[in-house]
Amino acid sequence: MVKFNYYTPTEIVFGENSEYEVANLIKVYKGKKVLVHYGGKSALESGLLDRIYEALTANEITYVSLGGVVANPVLSKIEEGITLAKTEKVDFVLAVGGGSVIDSSKAIAVGALSKEPIWSFVGNIDIKKALPVGVVLTIAAAGSEMSSGAVITNDTNDLKRDFGGRALRPVFAILNPELTYTLPTYQTACGVADIIMHTVERYFTNKTSMEITDQISNVLIQTVMRHALVLLDEPTNYESRAEIMWSGSLSHNGLTGARASGGDWACHQMGHELSAKYGVAHGASLTALWPTWARYVSGENKERFKKFAIEVMEVDPSDKTSSEIIDQGILKLEDFFKKLDLPTTLKALDKDINEEDIKDMALKATHNNTFNPGEIKKLHYEDIINIMSKANQ
Amino acid sequence: MVKFNYYTPTEIVFGENSEYEVANLIKVYKGKKVLVHYGGKSALESGLLDRIYEALTANEITYVSLGGVVANPVLSKIEEGITLAKTEKVDFVLAVGGGSVIDSSKAIAVGALSKEPIWSFVGNIDIKKALPVGVVLTIAAAGSEMSSGAVITNDTNDLKRDFGGRALRPVFAILNPELTYTLPTYQTACGVADIIMHTVERYFTNKTSMEITDQISNVLIQTVMRHALVLLDEPTNYESRAEIMWSGSLSHNGLTGARASGGDWACHQMGHELSAKYGVAHGASLTALWPTWARYVSGENKERFKKFAIEVMEVDPSDKTSSEIIDQGILKLEDFFKKLDLPTTLKALDKDINEEDIKDMALKATHNNTFNPGEIKKLHYEDIINIMSKANQ
Repeated sequence: MVKFNYYTPTEIVFGENSEYEVANLIKVYKGKKVLVHYGGKSALESGLLDRIYEALTANEITYVSLGGVVANPVLSKIEEGITLAKTEKVDFVLAVGGGSVIDSSKAIAVGALSKEPIWSFVGNIDIKKALPVGVVLTIAAAGSEMSSGAVITNDTNDLKRDFGGRALRPVFAILNPELTYTLPTYQTACGVADIIMHTVERYFTNKTSMEITDQISNVLIQTVMRHALVLLDEPTNYESRAEIMWSGSLSHNGLTGARASGGDWACHQMGHELSAKYGVAHGASLTALWPTWARYVSGENKERFKKFAIEVMEVDPSDKTSSEIIDQGILKLEDFFKKLDLPTTLKALDKDINEEDIKDMALKATHNNTFNPGEIKKLHYEDIINIMSKANQ
Repeated sequence: MVKFNYYTPTEIVFGENSEYEVANLIKVYKGKKVLVHYGGKSALESGLLDRIYEALTANEITYVSLGGVVANPVLSKIEEGITLAKTEKVDFVLAVGGGSVIDSSKAIAVGALSKEPIWSFVGNIDIKKALPVGVVLTIAAAGSEMSSGAVITNDTNDLKRDFGGRALRPVFAILNPELTYTLPTYQTACGVADIIMHTVERYFTNKTSMEITDQISNVLIQTVMRHALVLLDEPTNYESRAEIMWSGSLSHNGLTGARASGGDWACHQMGHELSAKYGVAHGASLTALWPTWARYVSGENKERFKKFAIEVMEVDPSDKTSSEIIDQGILKLEDFFKKLDLPTTLKALDKDINEEDIKDMALKATHNNTFNPGEIKKLHYEDIINIMSKANQ
């Protein structure tokens, strides 16, 4: 029987110019001194940060700033943020950016209220204490703006690990599709892949699902695929940017997990190792693994893969065997990733990955053989070596 | 361009036996003295209230009880609850029931923190102060367990009016589909109608929609329709009860309103007058009006009605004129209501409604000619008389 918890308190303000609401929202959540956390030049050059600073000043909200968050956000920057937050006694963290900035902000928000080193929270999924975090989103991808999790990378040992808890759900997220107009094509594509995979990975479960959740998953994946292709030619199409941005939040806020299980996150877990070791963009790390993973495990739950092929990928099942249907479903998603110029093998990443590298990543992905990612099939060390090696041919 | 706000903080615990979580949840939201508010005998006789009282006692949460909430909850009972809440200094209101009990609880929660009479809040949709409300849901229908609104009836003058605000979103809702097994068929059907209409009324807008929101609306309506028919033969089918229960919450928590507008609530507003005057169940008041309303206004936005027919009601458009497509879409939903034995005209309500009654209701629904319900077509006094008279033939 289906059982689940659903908790999505993040307040969304969606639409053009919504970033002008930032000061009002911070006041609703009682922020008086804010750490504004961001990535690189784009937030500065676009004028977005200036608009935010102006809004804060006009509303008598004081702030300090910390930029320089990189993709796959690193521990050293987080520790810098925690020290700054404690020294300046900030009571609110505002993330201006995408998943990396949000996750870095969440880590700072936890660390600011703790005496323990932030890396000691890794693996904890029940964190209850953190400063409130607000978000001005600049890329539709991670869904971290409504999620309870964060993923950070330890730059001393290349480990990429997650943690989470109800205190990590941002209190608000400002979603202005226009802020994503100027993203490079590749980043938009990586974001699209991440969004789709958040729904796909929850979809692949051996446990009982719900029809309404499956149906919502179908339309989320299909809508994102359709509009991602529109953006290839029209990167400033407001409607398509809006559809993808809102779908990105819905794909990771819990809605697509309203069934009996959390799904199969093996690709995310293997992908984290690719990102930590080679700096591969998160979305690309997923597409480089998914087709090989899907073919490797599909025999373990043919019904689910068949349903995915027919209902999500709209494979016509007539005159086809189950295997043919399943293969075509996987192929259709793989082809879509190719259309977006995303890698669908490890080889396509062009990182010269060798056997030893794969063994190292398999060891890390299984936490030194103490953890087996996946649900459709629990992956052991050898499985991960098999999948990565096949994907590397 | 699409702009919207979305705020759905209610924590959901979904599944069998979930009512045993009630004390833990009240503690999360810092309740120490609870007003347990409920309707009639069923909550008592089923043993549900006893299970709740036991859980509260075991967790050292004190409580007082107030039962007797009727369908279309009345002001006099709410005033009784406010007095009790103030006298007993309760800090939490627990609604054990459906929409009427929840709305009555919300009103008590507002009144308990105010010196103003509760009826003075009618029409206010920005209420910011109320005691926290938790819900143990016993009928899938109103969606009030995740919504910001409440509707109450003044039993001194038969006015049924709404109010709302962020403070009125319940802090948690416990959804155990098994608690709805024993509902009478007619009540289940009325609930189904209410759920569908929450999505349908948001769907009918003249403003810009979003594809993802339309698609989610489609699958919500279709899933509820499919499982409502299953329940006609199998009222204790867990899966179907679960699909309808979760869809009921999603249909009214804001998800289906994530587009540029609030939709067309004319049927809800006209229906409230039927309920207030004749005690008609809320769901039945909607189905008695909707087909006539739809035919009366469909010319104002043919594109939207055509889309509804093709995408939601799955009318095959080939070899049909636009009018034929629109007519068949309306007919299909009307036929579905008939299959559930719901009235699809005023006449079918068997209340001997005459011309004077209709004029009285039209006057009330337009707040004495100061308010025009609807968006597809703003309804004036004469429009409401026309619609109700046609529906009464």
